[in-house]
Amino acid sequence: MKLVRFGQPGDERPGILDASGTVRDASSLVRDWSGSALEASSLSEISRADLSRLPEAPPASRLGSPIAAPGKIVCVGLNYADHAEETGFELPQEPLVFLKSPTALSGPFDPIVIPATANALDWEVELAVVVGGVARNVRPEEAASFIAGVAVANDLTDRHWQFERGGQWSKAKSADTFAPLGPWLVTLGELPASLDLRIWLQKNDVPRQESRTTRMVFSVSQIIAHLSEFMTLLPGDLILTGTPQGVAYNKAEPDYLKEGDTIACGIEGLGSQRCAVQAAVSSMHK
Amino acid sequence: MKLVRFGQPGDERPGILDASGTVRDASSLVRDWSGSALEASSLSEISRADLSRLPEAPPASRLGSPIAAPGKIVCVGLNYADHAEETGFELPQEPLVFLKSPTALSGPFDPIVIPATANALDWEVELAVVVGGVARNVRPEEAASFIAGVAVANDLTDRHWQFERGGQWSKAKSADTFAPLGPWLVTLGELPASLDLRIWLQKNDVPRQESRTTRMVFSVSQIIAHLSEFMTLLPGDLILTGTPQGVAYNKAEPDYLKEGDTIACGIEGLGSQRCAVQAAVSSMHK
Repeated sequence: MKLVRFGQPGDERPGILDASGTVRDASSLVRDWSGSALEASSLSEISRADLSRLPEAPPASRLGSPIAAPGKIVCVGLNYADHAEETGFELPQEPLVFLKSPTALSGPFDPIVIPATANALDWEVELAVVVGGVARNVRPEEAASFIAGVAVANDLTDRHWQFERGGQWSKAKSADTFAPLGPWLVTLGELPASLDLRIWLQKNDVPRQESRTTRMVFSVSQIIAHLSEFMTLLPGDLILTGTPQGVAYNKAEPDYLKEGDTIACGIEGLGSQRCAVQAAVSSMHK
Repeated sequence: MKLVRFGQPGDERPGILDASGTVRDASSLVRDWSGSALEASSLSEISRADLSRLPEAPPASRLGSPIAAPGKIVCVGLNYADHAEETGFELPQEPLVFLKSPTALSGPFDPIVIPATANALDWEVELAVVVGGVARNVRPEEAASFIAGVAVANDLTDRHWQFERGGQWSKAKSADTFAPLGPWLVTLGELPASLDLRIWLQKNDVPRQESRTTRMVFSVSQIIAHLSEFMTLLPGDLILTGTPQGVAYNKAEPDYLKEGDTIACGIEGLGSQRCAVQAAVSSMHK
């Protein structure tokens, strides 16, 4: 299944893409794509619904994040060898883990807004994994059963905030619109078991990131197992699995995002995003 | 007001302490202590209720975390000069910020459980602030109006996980029971405007931490203003404001927590916690 949420920000309804690519309104089946609605038993039941009996969403509806605000967004850093190298960090011996504020989530075609004091905003296309079960001390070989589905994410990061404003990475990655997600949450049955998928990003239609998800240092299964050693994962939680080579930060003169830029990114089988970059509407008032 | 949640884990109901210290069941006034129920307008209305008309909670009810799972837990590190010194870190020029998983929350008298692969579990008593409004780019002088109330928290941290398992601090601070909160969420009207409160922690009834909340490097107002520059704070979000000197890590031979230990901690006017330390019931199965 390809799951979506459509409607105005904060007022989205759950939907499902039918075979023709039309969004069907799934509100009669599920309250929202979050929490227990994303457990395997729930998704299995919903997959048996006759989509032709569900109303079509209004044409040209805005798509929001395909999941409602998760309990947490857990991110893995430096998980492609070429990206670790370009940023000058050593390859981690174990997954490098940090959290991102759930308020960062936005829709796949929403603007990316540069905050007032950010001045080095960078992109990071990533494979996003949505948790589908309560996971504690899970083994890698059983990890797939804790996945509700996967999606395209962009882990926007301000490098000035990350490296010059004091300490841990969460501060640089948590502003509003710093986590466009979607267009779809795709359940695993639609994808090859290897999860060997092309992943790409273009800035102003120029290719900048290009890799395959199998080039991760730690696989999706290893990441889920690792995280579940340190914290309980709940249905609806979001995991971002790291970005490949090709961010602005690696360049001698980084071309960080500015108003008027466009970022498009996608993953094979998971659709693509296209976001215009805007400056903050109101400046800081302190 | 002193707000509590009582009942079994995952099944808590909202309550209010009356003048005699009895817990009154506030379920008829509010669904839970979370989100919009913690906005100023909501708390103001609830404060006018006649508590004598609310049913008493069952005697000896367990107290849970006084707020339901927050959208995020934001933490400030190294925010008391004496603690930064004891850990060997330089004093931050700006608040050092990281996030903690909301699944870490537990009740103020619940056991603290040592995870299977943790072996250096340390304590950090902290003043916790619960957000009461939508905060973006807030000035320090207006920050108090974004506070629903304050509480006692213990920011449990495994030092082995923090420093030897790869990277960012969230990994070391997010396990279940790593954030006992409460006993009460105390609204600001009950406290001196200075928030100059004694803060303390005892391990096995021996004093280990002892300070005043006014010895923070960055005040509560400065912290709220700073965080709101980098992320949107929502009603019900939880902020932990840093710990004073006296953690195990600072000792030549750190006496990290082991099964059978007891941690008591408290803040003047906010009550105190008492938690027994247990080893994990089941070991890792990988």
